Amino acid sequence: MRTSTYIERRFMTKRAVTLLSGGLDSVTTAFIAKNDIGKRGELYTLSFYYGQLHEKELELAREISELLEVENHTILDLPLNKLVFTALTGDEEIPVDSVDKQEGIPVTWVPQRNTLFLTLAAAYAETVDADFIYIGVNALDYSGYPDCRPEFIEAMNKTVNLASKRYIETGRGFSLEVPIIRKTKAEIIQWGTELGVPYQKTWSCYKGGDLACGRCDSCILRLRGFSAAGLVDPIAYEEFSDE
Amino acid sequence: MRTSTYIERRFMTKRAVTLLSGGLDSVTTAFIAKNDIGKRGELYTLSFYYGQLHEKELELAREISELLEVENHTILDLPLNKLVFTALTGDEEIPVDSVDKQEGIPVTWVPQRNTLFLTLAAAYAETVDADFIYIGVNALDYSGYPDCRPEFIEAMNKTVNLASKRYIETGRGFSLEVPIIRKTKAEIIQWGTELGVPYQKTWSCYKGGDLACGRCDSCILRLRGFSAAGLVDPIAYEEFSDE
Repeated sequence: MRTSTYIERRFMTKRAVTLLSGGLDSVTTAFIAKNDIGKRGELYTLSFYYGQLHEKELELAREISELLEVENHTILDLPLNKLVFTALTGDEEIPVDSVDKQEGIPVTWVPQRNTLFLTLAAAYAETVDADFIYIGVNALDYSGYPDCRPEFIEAMNKTVNLASKRYIETGRGFSLEVPIIRKTKAEIIQWGTELGVPYQKTWSCYKGGDLACGRCDSCILRLRGFSAAGLVDPIAYEEFSDE
Repeated sequence: MRTSTYIERRFMTKRAVTLLSGGLDSVTTAFIAKNDIGKRGELYTLSFYYGQLHEKELELAREISELLEVENHTILDLPLNKLVFTALTGDEEIPVDSVDKQEGIPVTWVPQRNTLFLTLAAAYAETVDADFIYIGVNALDYSGYPDCRPEFIEAMNKTVNLASKRYIETGRGFSLEVPIIRKTKAEIIQWGTELGVPYQKTWSCYKGGDLACGRCDSCILRLRGFSAAGLVDPIAYEEFSDE
């Protein structure tokens, strides 16, 4: 019988960085990551503040990080709006109504958003020596977003490895993990429920009220998902009004 | 004889985004970009503030942008240090001495720095409808940096196109332009001199004094470059002391 040294234990520890917005998909993905790396694994969560309509999701991301006993939860301020919207049009606000159902790529889309998030996650992963980077992208529900497709993830994975000092020097690259990329919303909710995700601590609504509106695309997708999974959504919704 | 319409002129206009740090390589690259897109072309410059040792370079980037009559010069605050250095070690400062000559990848290297810069440049390019993205990376002088190599640039170019709404919808992708990637410092200075680069408005020294130190790697590389080009470096250096 032998005792493993500190170095050996450190080497055996699985480390993962997961992007955590506080939305249903990212919270489920964080639970999947925690489950994948095991009890001894070290999880790091990374959230972004980039001028969202509300900060409710970031507060949920903080609570979820505590619940998952992460090593570190980092919130980065990103001046993405300055770059993307003000370059041409000044501090223009996107009306919330424009997120309603439409053809093609949604207008709420921010150019290179997942490219940016994954780049920062890779910088973080190199710093904490993590091998795995989790992101809750989904190619089914959000097929309008080019940066949610598997071919984008594959190209991105190659890119961050080619830019990595660790990969160049040791051959140990990062693995971008997209566990829910092919799952329906119902399948995601079922999986998360098995893993103990507290769905009352997730937020999906595009609007920033105290209660979810129940009418925007994201609320409808969520409600249909719970329904198809045969489960009850634990969050409260605004009362329905015909006006 | 016919008069082109506004739309036609807009279509004919070449637009480029160039990353501008205020260093010798990036300023030369900005002049190359301006020359490439022609008098009618529209140039956009993008600079980053991410906890550099000094702000002198950003001031130079502003002056160069005015000189090149750019459409817009955007400076973004990036909390890169928060992510990269504080995650493990707190607000640790890197001693300037550690940038001195060494084997392998320099310790001043920031993980995924060019990945991040090019991602933001692509988001900017999509916003202003530019086709070209210029970056002054060099694979000869800085061979220690993995994200200055042509294979990285190629993978990055593919990635930002796959994440681009414009590329998916119209087939018009971005072209990452790396005009000085294979040039020696002397060749860069010669090319820039032909294009009228005011090298007194560029900064290379790693230290933040009023005068360049003349002794750090970057100063030595610059001085040797001017010497090999048969030109005189117009900036002033600290007086040499044996102490």
